[in-house]
Formats: sequence, structure tokens, C-alpha cells
Amino acid sequence: MAMKRAASTLITSASSTISSLSSSSASSIITRNLHASGGKKKIVGVFYKGNEYASSNPNFVGCVEGGLGIREWLESQGHEYIVTDDKEGLDSVLEKHIPDLHVLISTPFHPAYVTAERIKKAKNLELLLTAGIGSDHIDLNAAAAAGLTVAEVTGSNTVSVAEDELMRILILTRNFVPGYHQAITGDWNVAGIAHRAYDLEGKTVGTVGAGRIGKLLLQRLKPFNVNLLYHDRLKIEPELEKELGATYEEDLDAMLPKCDIIVINTPLTEKTRGLFDKNRIAKLKKGVLIVNNARGAIMDTQAVADACSSGHIAGYSGDVWFPQPAPKDHPWRYMPNHAMTPHISGTTIDAQLRYAAGVKDMLERHFKGEDFPEQNYIVKQGELASQYR
Amino acid sequence: MAMKRAASTLITSASSTISSLSSSSASSIITRNLHASGGKKKIVGVFYKGNEYASSNPNFVGCVEGGLGIREWLESQGHEYIVTDDKEGLDSVLEKHIPDLHVLISTPFHPAYVTAERIKKAKNLELLLTAGIGSDHIDLNAAAAAGLTVAEVTGSNTVSVAEDELMRILILTRNFVPGYHQAITGDWNVAGIAHRAYDLEGKTVGTVGAGRIGKLLLQRLKPFNVNLLYHDRLKIEPELEKELGATYEEDLDAMLPKCDIIVINTPLTEKTRGLFDKNRIAKLKKGVLIVNNARGAIMDTQAVADACSSGHIAGYSGDVWFPQPAPKDHPWRYMPNHAMTPHISGTTIDAQLRYAAGVKDMLERHFKGEDFPEQNYIVKQGELASQYR
Repeated sequence: MAMKRAASTLITSASSTISSLSSSSASSIITRNLHASGGKKKIVGVFYKGNEYASSNPNFVGCVEGGLGIREWLESQGHEYIVTDDKEGLDSVLEKHIPDLHVLISTPFHPAYVTAERIKKAKNLELLLTAGIGSDHIDLNAAAAAGLTVAEVTGSNTVSVAEDELMRILILTRNFVPGYHQAITGDWNVAGIAHRAYDLEGKTVGTVGAGRIGKLLLQRLKPFNVNLLYHDRLKIEPELEKELGATYEEDLDAMLPKCDIIVINTPLTEKTRGLFDKNRIAKLKKGVLIVNNARGAIMDTQAVADACSSGHIAGYSGDVWFPQPAPKDHPWRYMPNHAMTPHISGTTIDAQLRYAAGVKDMLERHFKGEDFPEQNYIVKQGELASQYR
Repeated sequence: MAMKRAASTLITSASSTISSLSSSSASSIITRNLHASGGKKKIVGVFYKGNEYASSNPNFVGCVEGGLGIREWLESQGHEYIVTDDKEGLDSVLEKHIPDLHVLISTPFHPAYVTAERIKKAKNLELLLTAGIGSDHIDLNAAAAAGLTVAEVTGSNTVSVAEDELMRILILTRNFVPGYHQAITGDWNVAGIAHRAYDLEGKTVGTVGAGRIGKLLLQRLKPFNVNLLYHDRLKIEPELEKELGATYEEDLDAMLPKCDIIVINTPLTEKTRGLFDKNRIAKLKKGVLIVNNARGAIMDTQAVADACSSGHIAGYSGDVWFPQPAPKDHPWRYMPNHAMTPHISGTTIDAQLRYAAGVKDMLERHFKGEDFPEQNYIVKQGELASQYR
């Protein structure tokens, strides 16, 4: 689809959208950023490799070879720009540049894990940018303590993720995967699909978290005539809540057993890590379907695999794992009734163009000593954004 | 999900919904039906086999073993009820009963092909019921000429099919299938998915046909912020059209080249058979995605396979084939970038309960010599319903 759109036009248009979200304040960046701002910078980008696909689509800017489409712009200003997918261990390309890089750009799809140790080693580091949403690959407390700024391209792929979640809800509810297997293996056994295929209509769908993505999902679920529940720290503003027809559940554990389908839309924090453990899963409805495009570590890996094997969870779909890339022997690859993929939902071509534009915008501001759009900050002046506290 | 609902309760509730749609007229059935009405009937149901899945779900009424859940009721009134999946050729169970059956029930999922020849042999035949929607497996002109009544359970699975279409639109747009393959084969290659994964937002979706299913699909697509086009014989009533934000395209061939995604929602008739042939496909946007849950024979089978191989069609998904069951060597099983399944979208557990209730309702009326809900008729008093003319 639309393979021939020029990347530059779309980056410009996405960029202006993102810029328009920004606060107009231009106060100076404090702490380590300020100290180090100005002059030629060493910027390292860690992305997934494009390989044979790199040149297949001019808008495929999210891979190593695409490098977010900012190489020419960076180099024309005298900055050094290194891109790699080699991120693990002391011999990795990333590790080699840790001591003298100024800016590290990474993505949730192929995360550069930024530990306290790496932060300590990175004496010139000013800025950690996430091309996308979700900065849990960074030790945020260590980053805050070191006076670093961490920012993401908030909003850049919320629509992409919400759409993907709805796809996964339908894939599980309608039991798509066994049907697809039959198609490609020469089989035809309608009963093997139909005995556990359902309409979405009339079912109860609960989202754990109703932030930007959760709200977009609820909007898209509205015409399906489902019973919509949501749990969050905050209640949705009354007008939107009414429009969505969604019911607020203050107590997570009161909501979960009501749900035929549960969708995870909360960031990974110390509070949500391992939230779905064996005990909590045992209290869910037998036959529950779970969609998780948030973060793999919100689930207890083995507890999910066991509940899929026992049938307590009737279907599990998501694109997030821990760690990433998922090892070949990750149990979610082999458990029954799953519809897993690698981490992809936030890196559609459309999303790549938006987060590439957002990264460029923030770099530009950083070089000028200007503030970022307020909602992009994850760590600012030693403080974590509220969703990570 | 919801595996423990009692079948009987749901059938009752679905039945009353369907009854409420009926016209209140109760004029007598004319021609062969009238002649043969009254007395003990031989009813044959042709469904897909449940096999090991038959007893896995008490609501799985759509298989041979489930027999629509009407055996006890029929037999208690002295009728004979034969169910089978064996429908092809002169030695089949169906063929054996053709000479003396009064009522034939079949489904689009495992269609009993009712040819002019079979109609000629079926001297006692009064009524042909489709458990579901779509009666193109019947030679409707021959049925009309023979004075038979043909009826379906209109509305019974429109929601089921519309939901499934939206799933397939997302599966193709987001490039789900290669990601799933990676998950199960131990691979991790985000680029292999992302280089051709898109958001649905902002794309142009056109439906060929905007009847009951097409309208439900448009409603569900609305919050995705897409450009919605539709072609049909009839324009949607202005208020609904405005609510959907869909644009009417009187000329099919003017609409098709505008679409990033085309969805087929038209019955199979002599006008739509082979509608998407090599020439028409060649005029579509390069990289178009096609979803077809309507009927396989609306497409030229080989032309679709060739266009998927060349990349002109970037993705094709549907649950309908010709013939059904699809033979092991059907080219759609092996063409690139497909997301095919056996014919399943209209036979979710929820749909089965609704069409089982609708069939029971029509049998009850037939035995009493009462009319069916008007919208259920496909052939009535020698006349074809308008969508089949």
C-alpha cells in the first residue's frame, strides 16, 4: 500500500503535527544536558536491522539502514551519527561508543538496555531518546540521578498500537490462527475452528490502563457493542467516558474476573512488573483472552504459558516479550492458542515516519538548548514522569 | 470464552429476537409447499462434521452432531431428521435422500450444492433452508421454476461476518502473518514485518456492496479515521450515510482504483461471478489489499493468485473459496501474502445459536402453513429476491 509516497513530505507533515503539540516555552535545559550542549555531538542510534528489506520501501526509515532518515541532516551540521543493531555485551558496537556518546536513540522494538552501569560509563551522555513510546529499557532512576534527560515521541504510535490491539482481540475471539493453519496445510475442518470461535459483540472487554492507547482502543471498540470496562489511576473525563460508554473500575482485582477479554495498556514500572502472576491469573474467568502489546515483563512468563496449556487462558496475543529479541526457546513461542509476533505494533511505516520526525524535532531543540514538548519527557531535571513513578 | 452458557436459553433468546423481525402476516404458502404441507416430514440437514470437537462445547450446534439442536423437537412431532456431511456425488448420503426429502437444510460453510438435476429428482421437496446467509449453492432459477421456497436466516450472522472482515483488514494492513510465522519458528526479524506494515488510519477503504454486512463493517470502520467509499445498487439513506461518513460511488470501476483496501460484500449472482478477473485486477492500485468473505467465485481464482505472486495485490484474505471444501491444491492456499481460512466467519458459536433459532422458527411456521419473515425469502412464489436478480 502507498509504497511510493515520498518520505520527506510525510516526515515534514508528521513533524509539524508533533510540533504543534509542543509547549511554546523555550526555557533552557538544566543539569548535564546544559553543561554539554553546543558543539559537535556523537549520536548513536540502536535500531533493528533492515537487511534485504532495507531498500524495499523508501519510507522504511526505522531500521539501521534507514537510520530515521536523519543522517544527512546530522552530518551536514558536523555531528557524528553511528547506527547499529549490535547492543548486547561488552564487545557490542553500542558498548564501544558508550564512553563518549552524547545522545543515544533507541526503540522499544530492539531496545538498547541502558543499565546504571552503562550510565556510569557514559561520561558525555546528555540525552536518551526513545523513537517510539516506552522507555523501560532505561534504568530511569539511574538516569534521573545522573541528571540525564529521557524523552520519547509521545503519541507517535498510539494509533498504531491501538489498531494492532483490536486486531489481536479479533484474532483470538474469532479463532483465526487454527483456520489459517488449515488453509496453508491443505486441511479443511470448519469444526476445528468453529467450536471455539465467537463474536466479539456482547462480550466484556476490560483494559488495564486507559491512557492514550487505551482510550484509542476504547473508541475503536465502541461500535462493536461490547461491555467496556477500564482500570486506571485516573478516571476518564466524564464527557469522553460517556461517549465511549466505558465503565471505570477503581479496583483492578474487582474488574479482571468480569472480563472475557483483557487488554494491557499500562507502562512497565516497578508496580506493574509481574502483575499477572500465577495467583492473579487463577482468579480470571476460565477461557479468558488476553492481549498484551504493552510490555512482556508485566506478565509472569511461565504462568502465562501454563495457563494457556491448561486452557484457563483460552488465547494470548501480543507483540511484547522479555527479553527482546525473544530467545528461540521462549515458552510463548510454543504454548497453545497464542497469536504472538515480534515487537511490531508501534513500528508500522506510518509510525516510523512519525517517530523519526519526532526524534529529529527533539534533536533540533536539544542542539538549540530549547525544551521539548512537555508530554515527551520521561525524565526531566531528575524527576520521573508520573506514569513511571 | 463463555463456554458454559446453556444452549437452550440462548436459542430461545435469539429466536425471540428473530421472530420480532417477522412480518405479522400469516397468509398461506402457495405452490409445491402448500400442496405438500401437513403430515410427517423428512428433513435432511447437511452440515460440517464436528468429530472430536462435537462435544467440546454445549453451544456447538452447527455441526452434524449438533444438528442445530432441533432433533428432539422435530422427532417429538413425528418428523424424520437426517443429518450428514456427505453431500457430493451419486453415492452420497444426501443423494440417497433426495428422492423423498421434504425439507433440505444446508449452510454456506459446507454447502449442499442443489443443482437443477437434484431438484428434478426431489419430487417431495418443498423447502430449502440456508442456516446462515447466502443461497448461491442452490440453482435458484431451477428452484423458482419448480415452485420451491428458498429462505435463509437473514441477519443471523451479519455481525459475525462484519467483525471478521475488520479482523482481516487489520491482519493484511498490519502484516500480521509473517510476524506470527516468526514467532512460531523461533525467528525474530522486525524488519521482515515492518517494511510493509501500515496503520489503517488514513487509508481508503471501499466496500463493493453495502447491504446488511457492508453497513455493519462501515460502522465499525468509522472510528479508524479512514476514507470510506461504497458501491451498491442503492445509496444508503442520507442520515446513516452522513453518520458513517461514507461516500457513494455509483460507478464500481471509478471507485476501485482509489482504494488501498477493497472489501467484497455482494452476493454471488450471475452479475458478480468472476467480477474480479485479470482485467479488473490490473486496474486496481498496485499494492491493494483485498478482503473477501462474500463468495470465492466472485474472483477469478487464478487471476488473484497471479496478482498476489506479482505483488500487484499486496495481501488477500477471506474465508470463501470455490468449491468448498477447497481442494488441497487450491492455488489460494499457496499464493504469497494471503491470510486465508476455511469458511468460518458466519459460523461462530454466537452465529450458530442465532441461525439454529432462525431455522427452527421457519420450520415451525412451515409446518403451520405460515409465512416466514419477509426478509428471509430468497425464492418465494417463483420469484427471486431482488439481490439475486
